[in-house]
Amino acid sequence: MNDFIRLGHGSGGKLSHDLISAILLPAFANTILNEGHDAARFTIQGANLAFTTDSFVVKPLFFPGGDIGRLAVCGTVNDLAVSGAEPLYISASFVLETGFPLADLQKIVNSMAATAREAGVLIVTGDTKVVEKGAVDGIFINTAGLGRLITGVDIKPVNAAPGQDIIVSGSLGEHALAVMRERHGLKFPGEVISDCAPLNSLISELLVAVPQVAVMRDPTRGGLATTLNEIASQANVGILLEEELIPVNPTVCAICQIFGYDPLYLANEGKLILFVESSFSEKTLATLHRHPLGRGARKIGQVTAEHRGLVGLRTAIGGIRLLDMLADDQLPRIC
Amino acid sequence: MNDFIRLGHGSGGKLSHDLISAILLPAFANTILNEGHDAARFTIQGANLAFTTDSFVVKPLFFPGGDIGRLAVCGTVNDLAVSGAEPLYISASFVLETGFPLADLQKIVNSMAATAREAGVLIVTGDTKVVEKGAVDGIFINTAGLGRLITGVDIKPVNAAPGQDIIVSGSLGEHALAVMRERHGLKFPGEVISDCAPLNSLISELLVAVPQVAVMRDPTRGGLATTLNEIASQANVGILLEEELIPVNPTVCAICQIFGYDPLYLANEGKLILFVESSFSEKTLATLHRHPLGRGARKIGQVTAEHRGLVGLRTAIGGIRLLDMLADDQLPRIC
Repeated sequence: MNDFIRLGHGSGGKLSHDLISAILLPAFANTILNEGHDAARFTIQGANLAFTTDSFVVKPLFFPGGDIGRLAVCGTVNDLAVSGAEPLYISASFVLETGFPLADLQKIVNSMAATAREAGVLIVTGDTKVVEKGAVDGIFINTAGLGRLITGVDIKPVNAAPGQDIIVSGSLGEHALAVMRERHGLKFPGEVISDCAPLNSLISELLVAVPQVAVMRDPTRGGLATTLNEIASQANVGILLEEELIPVNPTVCAICQIFGYDPLYLANEGKLILFVESSFSEKTLATLHRHPLGRGARKIGQVTAEHRGLVGLRTAIGGIRLLDMLADDQLPRIC
Repeated sequence: MNDFIRLGHGSGGKLSHDLISAILLPAFANTILNEGHDAARFTIQGANLAFTTDSFVVKPLFFPGGDIGRLAVCGTVNDLAVSGAEPLYISASFVLETGFPLADLQKIVNSMAATAREAGVLIVTGDTKVVEKGAVDGIFINTAGLGRLITGVDIKPVNAAPGQDIIVSGSLGEHALAVMRERHGLKFPGEVISDCAPLNSLISELLVAVPQVAVMRDPTRGGLATTLNEIASQANVGILLEEELIPVNPTVCAICQIFGYDPLYLANEGKLILFVESSFSEKTLATLHRHPLGRGARKIGQVTAEHRGLVGLRTAIGGIRLLDMLADDQLPRIC
């Protein structure tokens, strides 16, 4: 490990994992933290709860399909939902730079409130800090969230097992490219809009129809490839994806080819990856397709007993390409 | 209100209140948030819970008596404890600047872990974001916390009522001055060490001995005067303090005279203010005095039926000075 923080430490990929394993986990170690979920899970006075946090530093603050406020609510709602919890209460903490326009703060706060209503959660506590000009880039927001674990559901990465199919709820890479486009004022050959959305209603409908879902994650920083690497490693299983089945919209494909990005490593903010026994795949897909956020759901691969800990991609021409974790940061500050 | 954020919006004083009432409360309004506690309180599946959050931007990161990591754990533990909850679980979210030394991060994380052990809480979930050089001043930390409300205890600002005494657990102003001294490399005529400490063991011993305690707060940003103004306004009672009874150590007094600060407006990070029926004052003080963090506890004033909504200070020479909320920020970035 280097002696100084670099951008890759925040990529959600390999360097982030190194930082977490070298510094954070050894210091804070406890059985709840060590489970390695998107949300911590524990019981207080008989209530089964999930608890999570995320800080948001996206640049620019407003982008096609969302803004830092919508992102801050969705990110925490989704971390709770993919852990098998019904999101209930959210905290909101702001760090503001002197000179930040109150009109922008009002827009961001309104967007958080609207997204919280959309997701059916309450923002119940908060904090506001102000720092001098130059000490923060405009506004950073932290949200933490608390949810009630849904009874009878046991979603966790180590549930991944051979015989399961891997399903994604829609096309990949739109959030990261929408933010990048806005940041750099790029002209793209078509529209790219962030998929930023609260996934809890999609997930709760799914879990009613198919409580057998074994693993759920939202492929944010590091994208699909990094998220699947984490699961393959945590559950010690192999994963084989079919490139032809992975949904990527043509504009995203074209932009990735021009800029050299790989959509499998780009962040999404309104997509779900799930693992389910293949006998339940059809029912899972049918349920997802009935929801506006799951219309583009596709089976993209399967869990294997071979090549444990590894993620492979069968390419269009028939070879198998090994997908490693994101090594460094290709697009910083997208969330 | 001005059109741009200024430092005073983060002071914890009058401008902070204006910002919260003008922008945040109207957008997020709900019965839990509107209660205006340090922590939100609600019930999930029969469990009575408290939930709070704080972001920490203190400068410098290390100061006599503490560091940003210790502060981040104490701040959230104390917000839960003064709401009548037993703190249980904490989240930790980091925003790091490229180039931040890993050795400093390690020290901060170790300090958080040690403080969590001291307070008996677990750090169970977290997040790490990295931004480019210049987008954040080194490191900001957010903690959110969850606690179990102690049965039979009902602590809230609106409980303040005439006939109650006001007690403070020790001397005021040390945290803010310790940070300022370190920031500016000042030479003081004596030692000033931050009082930064987790108050939950002091508070739990107190609530066992004196469950009648009506109101508790920790006088952080804005200091004693601002905190008491909030309570006077929320409960619509008058408050009369006796200047001669308020504990301020002689070094803090001397520094305040030199720099023109008022110790009643300086932030503390390990002090408790409480309101209790005067018949329980002696027992309260005796209990506090038995705990290392309550040795300096003193009765400093009382709640009155007159001058509702106002805080008065009977000065050493016998006049009454009106203590308003902190108007602007005298010492930014002390937490």
